[in-house]
Amino acid sequence: MSSLSGKLWGGRFVGTVDPIMEKFNASIAYDRHLWEVDVQGSRGYSRGLEKAGLLTKAEMDQILHGLDKVAEEWAQVTFKLSPNDEDIHTANERRLKELIGETAGKLHTGRSWNNQVVTDLRLWMRQTCSTLSGLLWELIRTMVDRAEAERDVLFPGYTHLQRAQPIRWSHWILSHAVALTRDSERLLEVRKRINVLPLGSGAIAGNPLGVDRELLRAELNFGAITLNSMDATSERDFVAEFLFWASLCMTHLSRMAEDLILYCTKEFSLVQLSDAYSTGSSLMPQKKNPDSLELIRSKAGRVFGRCAGLLMTLKGLPSTYNKDLQEDKEAVFEVSDTMSAVLQVATGVISTLQIHRENMGQALSPDMLATDLAYYLVRKGMPFRQAHEASGKAVFMAETKGVALNQLSLQELQTISPLFSGDVSCVWDYGHSVEQYGALGGTARSSVDWQIRQVRALLQAQQA
Amino acid sequence: MSSLSGKLWGGRFVGTVDPIMEKFNASIAYDRHLWEVDVQGSRGYSRGLEKAGLLTKAEMDQILHGLDKVAEEWAQVTFKLSPNDEDIHTANERRLKELIGETAGKLHTGRSWNNQVVTDLRLWMRQTCSTLSGLLWELIRTMVDRAEAERDVLFPGYTHLQRAQPIRWSHWILSHAVALTRDSERLLEVRKRINVLPLGSGAIAGNPLGVDRELLRAELNFGAITLNSMDATSERDFVAEFLFWASLCMTHLSRMAEDLILYCTKEFSLVQLSDAYSTGSSLMPQKKNPDSLELIRSKAGRVFGRCAGLLMTLKGLPSTYNKDLQEDKEAVFEVSDTMSAVLQVATGVISTLQIHRENMGQALSPDMLATDLAYYLVRKGMPFRQAHEASGKAVFMAETKGVALNQLSLQELQTISPLFSGDVSCVWDYGHSVEQYGALGGTARSSVDWQIRQVRALLQAQQA
Amino acid sequence: MSSLSGKLWGGRFVGTVDPIMEKFNASIAYDRHLWEVDVQGSRGYSRGLEKAGLLTKAEMDQILHGLDKVAEEWAQVTFKLSPNDEDIHTANERRLKELIGETAGKLHTGRSWNNQVVTDLRLWMRQTCSTLSGLLWELIRTMVDRAEAERDVLFPGYTHLQRAQPIRWSHWILSHAVALTRDSERLLEVRKRINVLPLGSGAIAGNPLGVDRELLRAELNFGAITLNSMDATSERDFVAEFLFWASLCMTHLSRMAEDLILYCTKEFSLVQLSDAYSTGSSLMPQKKNPDSLELIRSKAGRVFGRCAGLLMTLKGLPSTYNKDLQEDKEAVFEVSDTMSAVLQVATGVISTLQIHRENMGQALSPDMLATDLAYYLVRKGMPFRQAHEASGKAVFMAETKGVALNQLSLQELQTISPLFSGDVSCVWDYGHSVEQYGALGGTARSSVDWQIRQVRALLQAQQA
Amino acid sequence: MSSLSGKLWGGRFVGTVDPIMEKFNASIAYDRHLWEVDVQGSRGYSRGLEKAGLLTKAEMDQILHGLDKVAEEWAQVTFKLSPNDEDIHTANERRLKELIGETAGKLHTGRSWNNQVVTDLRLWMRQTCSTLSGLLWELIRTMVDRAEAERDVLFPGYTHLQRAQPIRWSHWILSHAVALTRDSERLLEVRKRINVLPLGSGAIAGNPLGVDRELLRAELNFGAITLNSMDATSERDFVAEFLFWASLCMTHLSRMAEDLILYCTKEFSLVQLSDAYSTGSSLMPQKKNPDSLELIRSKAGRVFGRCAGLLMTLKGLPSTYNKDLQEDKEAVFEVSDTMSAVLQVATGVISTLQIHRENMGQALSPDMLATDLAYYLVRKGMPFRQAHEASGKAVFMAETKGVALNQLSLQELQTISPLFSGDVSCVWDYGHSVEQYGALGGTARSSVDWQIRQVRALLQAQQA
Repeated sequence: MSSLSGKLWGGRFVGTVDPIMEKFNASIAYDRHLWEVDVQGSRGYSRGLEKAGLLTKAEMDQILHGLDKVAEEWAQVTFKLSPNDEDIHTANERRLKELIGETAGKLHTGRSWNNQVVTDLRLWMRQTCSTLSGLLWELIRTMVDRAEAERDVLFPGYTHLQRAQPIRWSHWILSHAVALTRDSERLLEVRKRINVLPLGSGAIAGNPLGVDRELLRAELNFGAITLNSMDATSERDFVAEFLFWASLCMTHLSRMAEDLILYCTKEFSLVQLSDAYSTGSSLMPQKKNPDSLELIRSKAGRVFGRCAGLLMTLKGLPSTYNKDLQEDKEAVFEVSDTMSAVLQVATGVISTLQIHRENMGQALSPDMLATDLAYYLVRKGMPFRQAHEASGKAVFMAETKGVALNQLSLQELQTISPLFSGDVSCVWDYGHSVEQYGALGGTARSSVDWQIRQVRALLQAQQA
Repeated sequence: MSSLSGKLWGGRFVGTVDPIMEKFNASIAYDRHLWEVDVQGSRGYSRGLEKAGLLTKAEMDQILHGLDKVAEEWAQVTFKLSPNDEDIHTANERRLKELIGETAGKLHTGRSWNNQVVTDLRLWMRQTCSTLSGLLWELIRTMVDRAEAERDVLFPGYTHLQRAQPIRWSHWILSHAVALTRDSERLLEVRKRINVLPLGSGAIAGNPLGVDRELLRAELNFGAITLNSMDATSERDFVAEFLFWASLCMTHLSRMAEDLILYCTKEFSLVQLSDAYSTGSSLMPQKKNPDSLELIRSKAGRVFGRCAGLLMTLKGLPSTYNKDLQEDKEAVFEVSDTMSAVLQVATGVISTLQIHRENMGQALSPDMLATDLAYYLVRKGMPFRQAHEASGKAVFMAETKGVALNQLSLQELQTISPLFSGDVSCVWDYGHSVEQYGALGGTARSSVDWQIRQVRALLQAQQA
Repeated sequence: MSSLSGKLWGGRFVGTVDPIMEKFNASIAYDRHLWEVDVQGSRGYSRGLEKAGLLTKAEMDQILHGLDKVAEEWAQVTFKLSPNDEDIHTANERRLKELIGETAGKLHTGRSWNNQVVTDLRLWMRQTCSTLSGLLWELIRTMVDRAEAERDVLFPGYTHLQRAQPIRWSHWILSHAVALTRDSERLLEVRKRINVLPLGSGAIAGNPLGVDRELLRAELNFGAITLNSMDATSERDFVAEFLFWASLCMTHLSRMAEDLILYCTKEFSLVQLSDAYSTGSSLMPQKKNPDSLELIRSKAGRVFGRCAGLLMTLKGLPSTYNKDLQEDKEAVFEVSDTMSAVLQVATGVISTLQIHRENMGQALSPDMLATDLAYYLVRKGMPFRQAHEASGKAVFMAETKGVALNQLSLQELQTISPLFSGDVSCVWDYGHSVEQYGALGGTARSSVDWQIRQVRALLQAQQA
Repeated sequence: MSSLSGKLWGGRFVGTVDPIMEKFNASIAYDRHLWEVDVQGSRGYSRGLEKAGLLTKAEMDQILHGLDKVAEEWAQVTFKLSPNDEDIHTANERRLKELIGETAGKLHTGRSWNNQVVTDLRLWMRQTCSTLSGLLWELIRTMVDRAEAERDVLFPGYTHLQRAQPIRWSHWILSHAVALTRDSERLLEVRKRINVLPLGSGAIAGNPLGVDRELLRAELNFGAITLNSMDATSERDFVAEFLFWASLCMTHLSRMAEDLILYCTKEFSLVQLSDAYSTGSSLMPQKKNPDSLELIRSKAGRVFGRCAGLLMTLKGLPSTYNKDLQEDKEAVFEVSDTMSAVLQVATGVISTLQIHRENMGQALSPDMLATDLAYYLVRKGMPFRQAHEASGKAVFMAETKGVALNQLSLQELQTISPLFSGDVSCVWDYGHSVEQYGALGGTARSSVDWQIRQVRALLQAQQA
């Protein structure tokens, strides 16, 4: 081996310890979030060691008692970190040893650091998923309640942001609520895959000391155990899935936020955001800005960025544990915090939003009934393609004459098609229009009620 | 309105038609992939129209017959696109009209283009998911068969790419197979959400003509119907989920490829790739390069890029259909093709890979048993932390003396701990080492067999 | 070595050749785009070989003549690919050999495939950058011309999509044009780094045959030569930079498209898209949708996806050439095509857009002058924070009284501050308002003119 | 307007203030990083106000003095945040008012919050770019110094991770150093675009009070001023560019890290990482893991994730300021910190790395000279394609005979080609091999020296 005898190549001086490297390597700044689950995991593991005969009952009790003390110190914010505590796992075991002595050294028997970390993370995320599910359900429930209460309000449905057809305001609310039910379903699936116990896998080869993993599973209340010890310590599918779940959910919320930002503009004036979710301008005294919605929209980027970052980190990584995997935790913590805030703010926004019923009504115009006019002809037997063309001619005729579509006389309409007769006047009623759309999923009242029942049933099933 | 009377601002001339815009807007170049499902969807829809009384039985038969002819032309590659066929849906309906006349104009009754597109895409992807599931199962099965056949081969397990502990070669194979079973499980979940019928949602408000969506669902063999017509025509969760599924699956395959690329190097020399999956060098006559594995590794980037692209396109989009959603199809087609090729090539690679048993055995060295040496002391009653330290001292002593770890004499070991006795010699047997790891998921033969049974049972359950 | 003697592990049969692998490996389906630059690169290289004495003058002439013939066949679409032509480089050399015999075998002397590929790609991208620069300049020029012609049109400036202050329509156009000038500047920088010759680097170690790389550089008209042969054949910075350039440019165009989509809505009604860039609805006869703008907005996702994909592919790749790098070309070709179409369509849209001057004027309202009202007080000596508060009180007073801000009487204003006097009436003139903003970059006419001059000067400098 | 009279829709209670929204909205938790540049920006702006006659000399002095005091409090960590300080800008102005009274209210005259934020961010990033440039130069310099010192060490060059040709160790070092010089060049370009003053743009329309932006530019030492006030307050190109710069630089470092992780394995054993940059295993006493390199490799994902996140946030955003833009700062701060740590750790790793010269030499084998053998024949007049084939035959013959390539006798070689003669023995010298590669950029000593000179010249030019 070439001895460099300490020669350095022009770089910064580096002795046996590089403080920047130490900080770079340490995770205690963020993984202290895991203090509680780390204690929980160690409690379960010490029970497993006792069953395997690696701890006596007395030793186990000593460890359990010491862990209680550790947890108490964290809960009461009296836990003192030492400069050598590079992560929460070292910190807790170091403290346990101070509290109960050498027996503490038996806790890590057959358990690798990698295996402990991933167990803790799964415990933490399992709890987080439950919390986020609850917040998501609350948001959906708020939306559905609102949809039920305001189901008689009509306003324009848009496609390509152009006015398309009259719909119920509740139909719009439900369109976003229904999207969120898929997020809720997916979150339960992600949670199911999080809720799998990796403990008892050692660093790579497994556990050689007779630890019963099924017993550990039961102790820690997991749904299943991992199948392969190499995979167990190094796969981060459950993290990637969680981050993608959040990304897709944020995409939905960004679309709802975009709609509401538009509906809040002076030009649309369909809704008004509560003051609690708006802010003023430091320069323009008349302004009221929808900051809450803009922040929700923007967080879609941040959350997706974390998902993208993790996948890139995982790409091409050799199998089993590599330190690269340490990148998982900050992503999870940040995204969990963001989702928690976003879901609660969204619930607050929806709860307190005011709608401008009059403006909603006035935004409806007869040209939005052109499709219904075509359907009128279809019902009289005309093939749809011809009916669509005929209705288009009526739209053009009205534009040319400078009148509203419903102001064309029957005679005028009959120049387009002889199928028009006096009952065409029924077409021009917005309430009548929406009530036609009675197929499941449509905007008729019965269908909106059906949607409400469906979503409520889903929520109930998921909470079961 | 300000009339510009045709004045142009220095830009390229644009008349009533801009050919670049036409090409930009058209999707026929790629959505012709959908020809079969488009016909299938129209067949189902015409049955729904007949049930709703919008088509007579004779008209329906005429349409069904015409659609058969259209399908036949595509199948026999005699279908002629016209320059105005901007997408597959227009092309098929245009041809139907040529074949059966005005009745063709009744097929689109109450169906919007948006609704048709998304129905077709779901039909196509449902089939693709089945195909990809089959290819994935074949890969997993190949791996499991190989794991069973070669389960007595030992070689080094690595963490951080450093030699860690002796493991079974099959344990490595299974670590990757187990990861793929999660992909397989996820694909079924994605397929479940793809398999939901959006037809009967119109453009936004729903269907006003008494079409029975449950009947359509049964006709087209979907598992459920969408709940809200606005959401149904514009949500692309199922596309995003599919792209993410592929991204995560590719991450797994990229990691397996990385391992094998390393094991193929002169330095590792643990495996040898079949000639069918290697290539030579145009400059260096002695080279044999693992191109197949490098391509698999690289595709993780491409596939993820499509997922990232779609999510960015969806971010902040106003609700309901916007033309932005047209970006979904090329992503789906490209990723499906890529996954199909990757899964088949991976199966080929694994099927034909040769292993260098001798090199695998020679790569094991006594220092990889240092953990077992610590466990030896644990079994004698020493707390693990002390045992780990004692074993570390032995490693250091051996290094200092320039001998292998198993060449330290009993006396020497006893200077480290009096717990060492004659039976320490058992530690130095690699076969004995792996057999210790008998906890579920470990590298003992019984545990490897258990893994094989578990994975086979999973496959069987999924195929049911 | 363990011989498997053809035993397969349950997978699909694989002989010495796997057709799926062959297709997976081949790039001819897309890299034929490079035919012209491949010939160009080979022409330059053969000149370098002649200078180095590795070709006689006669051999060089024979090769050059053969290459002319190859190029002619491509240009006239008579070039016939053979089934073994896995890429454009092999195809061209194979054909050259057919045309001129064994001398063709001298062309590749000291040149590796990797080195040839990267040279070709740089040649191709250099040309593409010039083309895209031209299209970008045309778009910017169109915008600036339009800004100059319509600089007397006022309309609302928005922040947070809320009406903020009156501005010139040209100020809005220029805000987007100015963003595009940065893209233009960046593209030149990217081109500079593309325009560096890697030829003469061999596969890894360099060229041992006396080829003069400076001469090759001059022959092929590159700006510089690469510094290190290992880096030269495997770095793809220039590809990543190009893809990011396109991503950022698309982000700008997506924001402009979003603005215009909003301005096209019935609610804003500020502009109207030319029919050439709109489409109708298959269901709703009255609709006119801004498809061109939606497609522009959506392509930001696709283009970014390619950038993300490439970076992920590059992450953690061992140095020098790996087959993973083959992923570069499809990304480049697709993004180049997309940018070309987007820039031309955007130019068409801007050229033909109609503005609704009256609506623009009517969208201005006195509350948008609240900031000017505060400035009025500032000019009378009130600290800005107090003036902002006073103006806010006036806004509130007007709202409470149900009148427009400019309808408050002087007496009423004086209850807020005694600094108000008769000259406050000047505040209520929109034309007067914008003319105040005379600092460079503001919306006063002089400043808008200055912006136009600045952008034109930039364009001129870049084209030089 | 529909009054909901406080009715809530089943959601969490929300009064006039929602504490979660307040926290969601506030940025003080991270933007306090900007305290110094915020004071700096305000100092410059107050000078501009004085020149414009909006402040008297005495008022300006009072403000400047107050700002000094604010800065002092931050520097001495005595600044007390109040609960209402939602961001650093509000906090500093609030404190200024406490210190100097109402005059503080004049500082914000004609300056919007948006404009102030973006000015501060540019000031901060300008400084950060300089710091990172310095760290990058130090890393490159360290690499070049090392390359110079160890330029006589030969080892295998790899392509596709297969042994390819003998190269100098310094050639490998320089391949990575050269990549980093491009990052350095790009960082200067990014800094140039950061160093443009947006101040004086107001919220959207510009500045109406005669503030001289050229004077502000000179005061704050910017290189240029922004051209359009709408663009100035809302473009984040400079942030996106910085994040992409970091992503590409990290891609380079991830590739260098990957190489070194491989070279550190037992199997390659070419280098050894200093203890300061390695860690042990909690389970396996014999392990020494390259954690520093793995962390460097992994950070490529995190950094790119931030870039992806920002671009997604920007996609489709309406023009001018939207609160979404608040996402920029955390990304910038995190990426800056990461880059600073990574560059310093990489410098430490390279400075202290030990190389195993003997292993490097022993890893060279005669088959790596097969290309040179082909060149030998080329020099004798054989076309390269034939020479490549002949050399391939020699490789095959040696393999078949079970001898090294250089152990084939002259007679044996002559059965392949009569062009082989006694001087073929020169081919088998590794030192002779590398010295052939004398073209610029190759691995000959003269060329390596040329590379060193080139890189040093670049560094010098950039620091000028």
